[in-house]
Formats: sequence, structure tokens, C-alpha cells
Amino acid sequence: MATQGQVITCKAAVAWEPNKPLVIEDVQVAPPQAGEVRVKVLYTALCHTDAFTWSGKDPEGLFPCVLGHEAAGIVESVGEGVTEVKAGDHVIPCYQAECRECKFCKSGKTNLCGKVRAATGVGVMMNDRKSRFSINGKPIYHFMGTSTFSQYTVVHDVSVAKIDPVAPLEKVCLLGCGVPTGLGAVWNTAKVEPGSIVAVFGLGTVGLAVAEGAKAAGASRIIGIDIDSKKFDRAKNFGVTEFINPKEHEKPIQQVIVDLTDGGVDYSFECIGNVSVMRAALECCHKGWGTSVIVGVAASGQEISTRPFQLVTGRVWKGTVFGGFKSRSQVPSLVDKYLKKEIKVDEYITHNMTLADINKAFDLMHDGDCLRVVLDMFV
Amino acid sequence: MATQGQVITCKAAVAWEPNKPLVIEDVQVAPPQAGEVRVKVLYTALCHTDAFTWSGKDPEGLFPCVLGHEAAGIVESVGEGVTEVKAGDHVIPCYQAECRECKFCKSGKTNLCGKVRAATGVGVMMNDRKSRFSINGKPIYHFMGTSTFSQYTVVHDVSVAKIDPVAPLEKVCLLGCGVPTGLGAVWNTAKVEPGSIVAVFGLGTVGLAVAEGAKAAGASRIIGIDIDSKKFDRAKNFGVTEFINPKEHEKPIQQVIVDLTDGGVDYSFECIGNVSVMRAALECCHKGWGTSVIVGVAASGQEISTRPFQLVTGRVWKGTVFGGFKSRSQVPSLVDKYLKKEIKVDEYITHNMTLADINKAFDLMHDGDCLRVVLDMFV
Repeated sequence: MATQGQVITCKAAVAWEPNKPLVIEDVQVAPPQAGEVRVKVLYTALCHTDAFTWSGKDPEGLFPCVLGHEAAGIVESVGEGVTEVKAGDHVIPCYQAECRECKFCKSGKTNLCGKVRAATGVGVMMNDRKSRFSINGKPIYHFMGTSTFSQYTVVHDVSVAKIDPVAPLEKVCLLGCGVPTGLGAVWNTAKVEPGSIVAVFGLGTVGLAVAEGAKAAGASRIIGIDIDSKKFDRAKNFGVTEFINPKEHEKPIQQVIVDLTDGGVDYSFECIGNVSVMRAALECCHKGWGTSVIVGVAASGQEISTRPFQLVTGRVWKGTVFGGFKSRSQVPSLVDKYLKKEIKVDEYITHNMTLADINKAFDLMHDGDCLRVVLDMFV
Repeated sequence: MATQGQVITCKAAVAWEPNKPLVIEDVQVAPPQAGEVRVKVLYTALCHTDAFTWSGKDPEGLFPCVLGHEAAGIVESVGEGVTEVKAGDHVIPCYQAECRECKFCKSGKTNLCGKVRAATGVGVMMNDRKSRFSINGKPIYHFMGTSTFSQYTVVHDVSVAKIDPVAPLEKVCLLGCGVPTGLGAVWNTAKVEPGSIVAVFGLGTVGLAVAEGAKAAGASRIIGIDIDSKKFDRAKNFGVTEFINPKEHEKPIQQVIVDLTDGGVDYSFECIGNVSVMRAALECCHKGWGTSVIVGVAASGQEISTRPFQLVTGRVWKGTVFGGFKSRSQVPSLVDKYLKKEIKVDEYITHNMTLADINKAFDLMHDGDCLRVVLDMFV
């Protein structure tokens, strides 16, 4: 490997300041240290979490940084002690690590992992608490432990899933975030059973993946709720059987849904990040057993509330990160499911662009027609 | 039976108005109609829910009424079509009905039952939407479908559990509410596993029953939280291993507990009915899996709140009524457990009094030394 052990200079989209256009820069990417993996990122998608941090509303956001966390690539080189991947392996970077050793990983109860969070949460690598990205010596922060808006990135070895090399990277990059988040919210967090009535609030990528997951789980009714009625036609392809636009009703949306479902839904999913909708999602659940899962990320400082009677009478309120999937263990099997055509991926990609177009890609995300934009990093 | 089919005149404590002393009156108790059971109440305990409605703070409270819902007695007579109990059977009235036929009962997911709620919720019997209690022709409302502060009461057949006649009624009356609520919150709602760390907020009867249930479930640490430090000594007998008085700490109680438990407890239980404590109980749970169960009943109109991040990172917020026990099916087995000394009951009874003393008994409930007052109804 000509580049192994060397600093690589490549293109990356740098967020210098909140809410200012990203700038394509030549960045220096240092070689991986012990326990680290340098990945050549071939394709990355954009996710609303990138936009959220970029907007400056994320109080943990650090600038300048390289955003991006939904991608696929090939291992360029590995640092000392890395055994589970090697140069040439096809991989998906995982913002949710899986070390298999910490209290969280060993609990058997969660996919959260505590191993590298103290570093990834503040934009650096664990080994020396420094960044591997720099521009003329000035360090640029990492983001979510992935920073996939760069042609090369360095991640912790616990944050990379090795996948089947026959999988098309320009498609399976989506399995780094949004699609697994929705599917897993249904399969792992809610554990929807056949015959269930399901409500999905927000019909973006995550909401559609919830619908797809619910359909696969055998839900009998999948009610999609969105303030943009145009989204219903597409949502049908992902399993949504009924559509409600809250703007077309006088009554609170939770009451509309309770009335439509003889007392409420069995499972609801909030895929927007709006705390009022989170309340509605809980309160549209059936007394006695209805379970509501918060999937969306709310703005900093906002709070959810409800009357405690809602919970005392049997509703359950929970949430999910990355759909409860254990990243290194389960992302490869999601890739296999895609290859066997058991889950959709292609259908979520509405736009293909290049790294140079990244600011246009962010603009597109606010468009109701857009689900995922995939950037080809080397065109 | 000399009284069968006749109106019985007996003593009852009538709540004529909110927050005014109860008055021992001669009340007329009509014979049971179809699907109804008239019960001679031998012993009744007082519970904070009685005090809550009596105080006038319960917006669904109706006056005048006969309060009381934690009792034991003997069937005096049954109405048409009642097959599961007969005169002479020993029974515990169940404010949470179990019809075994409604959507709730058949769901296999909840102990709530919808069959008679529309009537019991407004203080009448289902058959004719009228009360069986009257004084000189003036109807007196039922309460929670039980009204055990009367020497005779009429309940729906779906609201009465037949128990082993060898059980001492002056003890097992407690199995009508508080003790099962605490035990079941642990066993049925939270499903605490061996080795778990548990926090119990509020060390009254229900909180102590939570501790007892947690100990039986094999919890490794049971942290009791109460603003009255005197309660700790007694709580040890019910399984509490550590005590925290929030008044003795500067930091929020959730932070104190998180610090003491390497990240938080596995399960927490709010047994007070205070919405701020409900929030603390959720937020003292461990990231990734901590589950908080609301057991206490909050004042009307109050709301719980938290940051959604608490749920997104894996905490679960739920609640329970009657500890999730199916009343008619499971109260008899709780009585059997008591007879086999597998669960405590006697230890919760701190005072024995008579019906005539009921106002003094209510006063006693505000005393930290008091757990349950049992009234002998026929002295």
C-alpha cells in the first residue's frame, strides 16, 4: 500500500462555522493509530443529524469539523492491534460503536456502547485525544466518530462493520443510519407483532423504514401521519396503508387516531424530532399496552410531557438509537438481507450527486420529494 | 338466608361532601341484581386513593358516596346469572375488574378490564345505571366499584375474587390494593431480574411492597428514597438495603443516585404520586436499559416531563395499575402465597380500629409511622 503509514491529502467538505456553506478543502488525514482504521469513503449519504449539527442547534457541535455518518467504503490501512478488518475490506462506518467489552455491550440489553464515546463526543480519537484531520496543521474535529464527508476518514476499530464485498457501496451506504434506525425501531425496540396497528409520524427515510419494518413484521394497519399529503403515494410502496394529514383535522391528531382505531394503536413511532408530536404519538396509543417509540431527535433543551395517567393506564414510552441494532454485529446481516432483497435500500435514494454538490444536497433535504441524497466521493 | 332478596340496613361511613368528616349512617343496601354480588364486608383498610377522592382533588369524585376499596368479606347473596361465587364464599372485592371477555382481558397484555368501567367510573351499577346504596330513598354513589366502608356492599361479579376460606380476612383485606400494587409493579410491570439495582421512591405501604417484591426477585441493591429518615429502620425489614433522604443532598436526587450506582439503577418505582419525583425516578435510571415505573397517582391536571434524550438513550417509562395483576385470577394466588408465608401482609398493618373510628384512621394516614389501618366493620 503506497499510502499506508503516510498522511493522505484528499478532498473533504469542511464545516468551518455553523450554518455557513460547507467548503471543499484539501485536508490532511493522518495514518490510523493503535485501534484505528483509515477508510476510503466511496459513497456517503446525508442525514438530518448532519444538518442539525451543521445548523448550530446541536449544543455538542464542534467547529470546524468534517460531518457525515452514513457511508460505505474500503479499508485503506489499519493501526496497531486491529484484527477484525484489514486493508481492502469493504466496510460501513458505524456512529454507534460496538466494543463487545464494556458494561453496555455486555448487558445484552442495549446497542449503546460506552468505549469510545468520551472521545467521539468531543470530536477526537481516543488514543491521543486528538483529531486525525488537519488543514495546514490546523486540526479539524471529527463528528460522531465517522466524518464521512471526506474521501478518507479515520475511525475506531469498534466503529466499523465489515460487509460482503459484493454489495454495491453506492446503495448500502444507507445502512449506516436511517434505514436501520427505522427497521430496528420496529423489530428491536418495539417488537411489533403480526396483526398490530401501527402509527408512523413523519414519512421521511426513517418513517418509511418504520413502515417497511412494520409491514415485514405483519402489521395489519400502518397509518402514516405527515403534514405533506404528497408523501402518501410514495409511502404506500413502503407499506403505509392509511394516511392522515393533521392539518385536515380540527381535533388533536391523537384523538383522530384513537377514533379511527377503536381506542388507539398498538405501536407508534415519532420520526420527526418534534416534542409535541412525541406527545401525540404516545397519546394515540391504546390504553393497556400501546407502546410509543421516539426515533426523531428533538432540538436541544426541548422537553416532552404528558399526564402520568397515560403511563399508569398501561402505555409505554421509549426511544431508540440506530434502531437498537448492534452495529458491527448486525449491519453485515442487514447488508445480506438487502442482497437477498429482503429489505429495500435503492428505493430510499432519490438523488445521486457528487461531493462538490454537497451544499445543494443539503438544500434538497428540505424538499418533501427528497429522501436520501448519495454523494459519489471520487467524481 | 334471611336477608337474601331483601334490602339490608347497615352501618356505613358516608362521605357527604369533599373534605368533611365521614358520617356513620344507617344505609339501605339493595339486593344484588343480575351479575351482581352482595358482600358482607368484615374488614376494610384505608388507602391513599380513598383520601385523595375524599379530599375533593379527584375530578371524578362524586358525592355523597361510600368510599373504600381494600377489604375482605363473605358473599351474602348473589344476583341472577352469577356462577363463580355463591353465598358464604370468602372474597376480596376488586376495584380492577376482570371479565375475561373484553378486548382488554383477551389481549393478554394488560390487567385493565373495560367491562364495567363506564358504570363504576360514575358511581353506579351497570345493570340499571343506579346505585344500590341509599339513605331514606336518597341514592349514595358507589366508589371504584367496591365501596367497602359499608358493612354490606354490592359489586359486579367481575369485581370479586374468591379466596381460600382459611385465610384470615382481617389480614388479607390488604391484598385488595396496596400490597399487590407494589409486588406486581416489580414482578409484572418491570419484571425485575436477579442482581438488579432498584430504587424505590416513597416508603409507604406500596413502596415497601415494591422493596419486598424486589428482594423476592433477587435484586442486589434496593435503594429507598424518602424525605422522612425515620422510615429507614422499618424499610430494612422489607428489603431496603440503602437509604437516601433527598433533603440531605444538595444535588438533584437523580444525580445522587446515578453517582452511587455507576450510572444509574436498573429499575425505579415512584410510589408517591409527585410528578417531580416521577421525573427523578426516570432520570436516575441507567442509560441503555433503565426502566421507571409510575405507581403513585398524581393530582389531577399535573404533568410529567423530561428531555426526550432520556428515552432515546434507552430508558423506558411506564406505569401500573394494581401491579398488573389480573384481579379475579391472581388475588386468590396472592392469598395462597400469604398462607405459605411467601409474602408479607401482617407487617403492613400498623393499626387496628373500628368503623366508628374511620375519621381518626384517615388522620393517622398522614403520620409517617402509619402504614395500613384495618377497620373491624362489626365491632
